[in-house]
Amino acid sequence: METKSVQEGYPGELSHCFGCGRVNEHGHQLKSYWDGKEAVAHHTPLPEHIAIPGFVYGGLIASLIDCHGIATAAAATAEDPSKPERFVTASLKVDYQRPTPIGVALELRARPKEIHARKVVVEVQLLARGEACARGEVIAVRLPESMMPAGAGRGS
Amino acid sequence: METKSVQEGYPGELSHCFGCGRVNEHGHQLKSYWDGKEAVAHHTPLPEHIAIPGFVYGGLIASLIDCHGIATAAAATAEDPSKPERFVTASLKVDYQRPTPIGVALELRARPKEIHARKVVVEVQLLARGEACARGEVIAVRLPESMMPAGAGRGS
Repeated sequence: METKSVQEGYPGELSHCFGCGRVNEHGHQLKSYWDGKEAVAHHTPLPEHIAIPGFVYGGLIASLIDCHGIATAAAATAEDPSKPERFVTASLKVDYQRPTPIGVALELRARPKEIHARKVVVEVQLLARGEACARGEVIAVRLPESMMPAGAGRGS
Repeated sequence: METKSVQEGYPGELSHCFGCGRVNEHGHQLKSYWDGKEAVAHHTPLPEHIAIPGFVYGGLIASLIDCHGIATAAAATAEDPSKPERFVTASLKVDYQRPTPIGVALELRARPKEIHARKVVVEVQLLARGEACARGEVIAVRLPESMMPAGAGRGS
């Protein structure tokens, strides 16, 4: 397992994401760790991140699956693990398998299912207390030039 | 078009959702208005809700599509429009068609595609400046007893 998260390898100009950007002080700052085959992340939702009292809000679950899937695509395709390339989401699918309890750390596990030149399909599982609560599929594509901030490079 | 939003008809005990609950002071408080065929909502993301600078974060787009889809299912099946029944998400799919600009009001439009006894399939479009930026499909199911807060009824 890498000791540095995938997101810590993103260049600063591409680290503003509300879900996982390390410079977004208002965001979730999700950190995904890649072991060469699988990426793992943990996140404990805030008390207000509920749908029905007692259960995590589906939008947060979708957000975590999205960012973790994107990080997995970046890690799985990185020539240099310390400089993963930035991907964005083309498509996101989430199946909510059972209500996700609030108040515990959630675990995310993801693996690349297909790796193409410009696109990676990632499967993500979200677990609470070891039980699968949601599964997702993220279609990640390399960041298009049109979304690149002025002066930013693809790698750090 | 109803002058009261679908979410204002949810019972208080089921109005805590971070995405659309009127009593969640930290949340987005999305409000969906139903005209008998289609539901419409508007939401202006906060400056920090970005993915890459300049563009809205996909997790927020997924969240808005989710809550708006659920409200559409509730409105489309309500016997009394002032007392929509609470649905939850079984599955959510979002296709990101083009980057969604930050700093403008987003418009959500949704219609039920299939209505079954316990399940409604809803199609949702998200637009910015009149341009379609994302499309979603929400599979909404009636709130199971296991998620019902103690003392809450299904209707208000």
